[in-house]
Amino acid sequence: MMPAYDDQNIFAKILRGELPCFKVYENAHTFAFLDIMPRTPGHTLVIPKAPARGILDISADDLAEVARTSKTIAVAAMKAFDAEGIIIQQFSEAISGQVVFHLHMHVVPMKSGVTLRPPQSRQEDAKVLADHAARLIAALGSSREP
Amino acid sequence: MMPAYDDQNIFAKILRGELPCFKVYENAHTFAFLDIMPRTPGHTLVIPKAPARGILDISADDLAEVARTSKTIAVAAMKAFDAEGIIIQQFSEAISGQVVFHLHMHVVPMKSGVTLRPPQSRQEDAKVLADHAARLIAALGSSREP
Repeated sequence: MMPAYDDQNIFAKILRGELPCFKVYENAHTFAFLDIMPRTPGHTLVIPKAPARGILDISADDLAEVARTSKTIAVAAMKAFDAEGIIIQQFSEAISGQVVFHLHMHVVPMKSGVTLRPPQSRQEDAKVLADHAARLIAALGSSREP
Repeated sequence: MMPAYDDQNIFAKILRGELPCFKVYENAHTFAFLDIMPRTPGHTLVIPKAPARGILDISADDLAEVARTSKTIAVAAMKAFDAEGIIIQQFSEAISGQVVFHLHMHVVPMKSGVTLRPPQSRQEDAKVLADHAARLIAALGSSREP
């Protein structure tokens, strides 16, 4: 059996404001922030506000909201990082490579000449992350224009 | 600029019934069938019926439907293949590794002792695929029981 959701995971703490993050977007059902160990510049995590470990225990409605927000982030990331493509991926349970047990969809901008780093390979400088968050937020704002 | 959707891609042909597949599920908005070059046993592709290359041009509604169906497949695959976890991933545009330009969400069951093969590394025997499809269809059916 799959273990129960543990509300002491670091993404639950980020959602409650108990840990800082480079937030880029939020709506009623989802929250998005930069991965501090980005595989490429702009690598963002989209999480549900509802407590869920992964695809097996999340409600279909909440997963649909995660998908919608992932598209929003993907479109903005193309502009913000001059990307040429996007990878989205989500790992459920340790066997799959999941490390933090609150569902998170990785949104990874891809671009020629930019190496896709291995997962969790290097923590990015805070100043770089702050700049990337600002670029993504700006692109998200402009994408909501009529 | 991203190229336009080309309705001669192989998944469009599968949707139109012009090419065979190991179908496991279908609803009003989505269609699911086995990857014939599975990374693990039970590796399934979930596609929208709407024409879309990837996350950038699909509608948010259709992507939400793909997510819902991916969860349905994931839950059934856990049972059908005695899996311990699930990877879902979707690649948009060639730079990301996309090969067929109709959006497809990979749903990959993960299990201890089962190797995650590289993408497109080996075509599975048709008899094995037929058996896997039958197991997944049976699990999907039983998951709809009250």
